Amino acid sequence: VELLKEKIRLEGKVLSDMVLKVDSFINHQVDPVLVMEIGKAFAKAFEDEHITKVLTIESSGIQFAMGTALALGVPFVYAKKKKAITQSSDLYSASVESFTRNETYQITLSKQFLTPNDRVLIVDDFLATGAALVGLIGMIRESGAALAGAGIVIEKSFQEGRKLIEDAGVRICSLARIASMSPGEIHFIEELKTSSVK
Amino acid sequence: VELLKEKIRLEGKVLSDMVLKVDSFINHQVDPVLVMEIGKAFAKAFEDEHITKVLTIESSGIQFAMGTALALGVPFVYAKKKKAITQSSDLYSASVESFTRNETYQITLSKQFLTPNDRVLIVDDFLATGAALVGLIGMIRESGAALAGAGIVIEKSFQEGRKLIEDAGVRICSLARIASMSPGEIHFIEELKTSSVK
Repeated sequence: VELLKEKIRLEGKVLSDMVLKVDSFINHQVDPVLVMEIGKAFAKAFEDEHITKVLTIESSGIQFAMGTALALGVPFVYAKKKKAITQSSDLYSASVESFTRNETYQITLSKQFLTPNDRVLIVDDFLATGAALVGLIGMIRESGAALAGAGIVIEKSFQEGRKLIEDAGVRICSLARIASMSPGEIHFIEELKTSSVK
Repeated sequence: VELLKEKIRLEGKVLSDMVLKVDSFINHQVDPVLVMEIGKAFAKAFEDEHITKVLTIESSGIQFAMGTALALGVPFVYAKKKKAITQSSDLYSASVESFTRNETYQITLSKQFLTPNDRVLIVDDFLATGAALVGLIGMIRESGAALAGAGIVIEKSFQEGRKLIEDAGVRICSLARIASMSPGEIHFIEELKTSSVK
């Protein structure tokens, strides 16, 4: 998905060594054509995995889960940050520390939507500390479902999340891996595998 | 979108006269094929309006905004319930009282994503009290953008939202209008216009 790196270069704003703002096309205003390209890239990367369900976390993972689930022809589920009155009481839950909001919140998922028969692909917009992914992985393991891997739109490879998730034995496909950044400069990790995905 | 009403009949759970649970295909687990049908129906209903942007509110509006924006070939934007550290300080904001969560929250939208040149279609999963829509309409009016109308997946027509939004001069296309409901029973308002949308 070269279009993604191009957009990050053109429209992304590096606010500090740690914070990348991509809210004109990823997580506030959203380019649905780019989202579908990303969804197709994840579907292709995991095409041999017989995925039955895509899992993400509200809110900014939802559009990418939607695009990926549509490309794979399966439903998606999103873990919720607040319990709705319509939600069942039979829930998986996990604590997640947010990097961009500097707070800890509880995520929940109704148990009926993850079963031991599922083969799950996690999708999210960012991988930084890996906290959200660790929460989702815990829920999947508790459910007895198989975890096929994680599709990540933008990975900040200089933070600890990538290693944490790989050490947990989870296959990761990140479409844009940022080696380092500073205001005005973004350096991507170029990978044969990622580069060949279009 | 007859498939939508069928799904509501088959999978929807009426928890009380006021609360309909559709979390197996609308707002927790999501059926992406149904979402695309819904998006195409909204795109068709507003095809003469020269829409430039779809607007929704996180979280459960996002998948429908994504489907609609993809069908229309325009970007979408979602108002946020919490301010992210990456968000600009130049924001529209509004207070919204949540019916399903029984609380008031602040929604925000970066000003750069709504301009006087935009023709906006609002999309949301539910219309009940109309509180979220009133908040979004206020932001659009403040921006000087034109409001083409609102596409609603499920309207609880026995609550006050429909009248409130129509009185504000906004055209509404609701795909499933519920006249009344009680545990085990759902009665839809059948409309020529809605029924002819497929």
